[in-house]
Amino acid sequence: MHYFYTKDKYLYCEGLKVADITVKYGTPLYLYSHRTISEHFTKIDDAFSAVPHLICYALKANSNLAIVKTLQKLGAGADIVSGGELYKALKAGIPAKKIVYAGVGKTEAEIEYALSKDILMFNIESVPEAEMISKVAGRLRETADIALRINPDVDAKTHHYITTGKKENKFGLNINLARKLFLKINGFKNLNVVGVHIHIGSQITTSGPYVKAIKKVIKLIGELRSDGIIIKSLNIGGGLGIVYKDENPSTPKKFAEKILPLIKPLGIRIIMEPGRFIVGNAGILVARVSYIKKGENKKFIILDAGMNDLIRPSLYDAYHKILPVTPVKGSSKADIVGPICESGDFFGKGRVVSNMKPGDYIAVMSAGAYGFSMASNYNARRRPVEVMVKGKKSFLVKKRESFEDLVRGEIMPEGL
Amino acid sequence: MHYFYTKDKYLYCEGLKVADITVKYGTPLYLYSHRTISEHFTKIDDAFSAVPHLICYALKANSNLAIVKTLQKLGAGADIVSGGELYKALKAGIPAKKIVYAGVGKTEAEIEYALSKDILMFNIESVPEAEMISKVAGRLRETADIALRINPDVDAKTHHYITTGKKENKFGLNINLARKLFLKINGFKNLNVVGVHIHIGSQITTSGPYVKAIKKVIKLIGELRSDGIIIKSLNIGGGLGIVYKDENPSTPKKFAEKILPLIKPLGIRIIMEPGRFIVGNAGILVARVSYIKKGENKKFIILDAGMNDLIRPSLYDAYHKILPVTPVKGSSKADIVGPICESGDFFGKGRVVSNMKPGDYIAVMSAGAYGFSMASNYNARRRPVEVMVKGKKSFLVKKRESFEDLVRGEIMPEGL
Repeated sequence: MHYFYTKDKYLYCEGLKVADITVKYGTPLYLYSHRTISEHFTKIDDAFSAVPHLICYALKANSNLAIVKTLQKLGAGADIVSGGELYKALKAGIPAKKIVYAGVGKTEAEIEYALSKDILMFNIESVPEAEMISKVAGRLRETADIALRINPDVDAKTHHYITTGKKENKFGLNINLARKLFLKINGFKNLNVVGVHIHIGSQITTSGPYVKAIKKVIKLIGELRSDGIIIKSLNIGGGLGIVYKDENPSTPKKFAEKILPLIKPLGIRIIMEPGRFIVGNAGILVARVSYIKKGENKKFIILDAGMNDLIRPSLYDAYHKILPVTPVKGSSKADIVGPICESGDFFGKGRVVSNMKPGDYIAVMSAGAYGFSMASNYNARRRPVEVMVKGKKSFLVKKRESFEDLVRGEIMPEGL
Repeated sequence: MHYFYTKDKYLYCEGLKVADITVKYGTPLYLYSHRTISEHFTKIDDAFSAVPHLICYALKANSNLAIVKTLQKLGAGADIVSGGELYKALKAGIPAKKIVYAGVGKTEAEIEYALSKDILMFNIESVPEAEMISKVAGRLRETADIALRINPDVDAKTHHYITTGKKENKFGLNINLARKLFLKINGFKNLNVVGVHIHIGSQITTSGPYVKAIKKVIKLIGELRSDGIIIKSLNIGGGLGIVYKDENPSTPKKFAEKILPLIKPLGIRIIMEPGRFIVGNAGILVARVSYIKKGENKKFIILDAGMNDLIRPSLYDAYHKILPVTPVKGSSKADIVGPICESGDFFGKGRVVSNMKPGDYIAVMSAGAYGFSMASNYNARRRPVEVMVKGKKSFLVKKRESFEDLVRGEIMPEGL
């Protein structure tokens, strides 16, 4: 579900023609729909209204401040994985008491920063990390609320780079050792075990793997209670899939119908960490066709956007729909590629797309998540401008970088 | 060949202990050896001294201004692929008349910028691009010197993402149609065809594919001369491989011995575009061990550097040697991973490495090329600091980013 649609052969974002927005801000351009973001959040919020819950938006998907602020106004918390994300979440007004901090490699400085801001809790991934948080909390005379991340050894059936709940992954604590580890860590000074956390992967389209993982965790929570460890929250992570091509993902409502009967009897607060589900389909990347190049057996549509702007096709072999922005007659097969000097610089291969001409605009759909957040300055390219549409108005939410930005902080010292 | 070496179990960069440098600047840290960069350049320069030649450093490998400046002082030109790289090359003092501009997607604005600076030549990749340059040059009342990039349909036998000389790639003009296309483009107004360009890929370890490609091109140059098109320069691109693991790449000297006999009779200027060969082994990424995590069947060494800092292992399945920076006793098998929430965030898998402890420093070798240049702010991580060593002195060449840098240009508009 999203508010990008074609009418009279023009692509729209909410109440505006994408072509008009693009003329105003230039290309490459990340374009977000405010209504899509809001409604995705609200759908999850409503689906889980029967139980106490907190939706922590996963900033890693897209940490643009205007997006985070939009969600903050709706009551969202934040799922963060670095000091930088904590800084951005706070900057967008997310209350510290709605922030959960995950990740296998929190540094001592990051832990100290998070403790000083008094965040809701840390999701702990290993015993040495628990020791480190205990140490830092002791030094600061604080008590850190923590959840332990359990690796439930469930196959989420997604790309191997984004599956995270199998036992060969680096994430979480082995479910079979969990009871023992909870008892051990519960004995650490300045730590207060309050939750269980799971996150089995990303872009998961059925509730099956969740049900499997949650059932394993419920058994654990029962055991922990009999050990005297009171678990007040269950964090079921993120990972709800979206439609990129022909997926048929579960809706939050259907998902909740499967999950809630398991969870309600626990009398526990649910935490969720959606990222892609909220912003994935809420953003597109708009580029301009630079050249049409006819190879011997192939046609190439060369854009002014590249893999530095959107690396998902190259890195994950990800599929993104590609649509014209203005009316184009006829269609044919082509590779849609960028200007970067690598064969890996492509958006789609062997696609039947409209017969674009140089100067035409083209949209790479479903680019809201892991788009700008993974963008680089490779080939000394300036990262794209970001714009958000709300109804019939467009708002600049990040300026395009300048040449000066490309050399910021670089130094040519005397003596070299 | 490079000036990183281990002495008494300490890793050194030229005359300094890497550990001491790291204490001074913190981690993650990109560390470059000035002498390695200089000698690599000089080796190529010497190997081709028998013919008129210009070595255009490929900024895409690493465009840090201090590196470009180092090469500029030795007489290097620049191979650029974007307006941003032109800006950086000029900033580092490379004369415009030593700059060649390649790439399949030069935009109109970039072409205008390059013409206004009066660069040496454009390497043209398609007829529509030639039309565009002709149009812009006409508008500016300039004449653009150009080379045409020929796709020689040679298999460079490297990673499919970085092979660029096969006919199914987006690069260059089909060799079989080249004679016809040269004649056609030579007729365009405001263009002056002066060269032939080939670039068959990256990280190529034998001279075989080059010899094959150059032979094809020499035949073409003869035909063009009989057509009255005087080719003054032959650009043989980049792509010289380096040692990452157990490669045995050709040296510039051996490479020149194979190439020069073919080229000398032409009485032509040779242009080369080395990038990786110059900086690949001249840089390392130094990280700090955050945690040692023991999984059920696996040990993970978790670093404070991640795939956002160095994406080559994840994107190209690239191998990088991993070494301790200070003395460490014993070794065992481990996955060396980053803090990012993806299974794709790794530097090496199943490696026998020293028994590192938290707080130890670790070096990812041969990270000078396509390291920092591809770095991103994914997971809202600040990009690393960059330092160069010359003899017994270290120089800061890029400041570490700050949290403020992470939100630069972002806006939370009223009305959203």
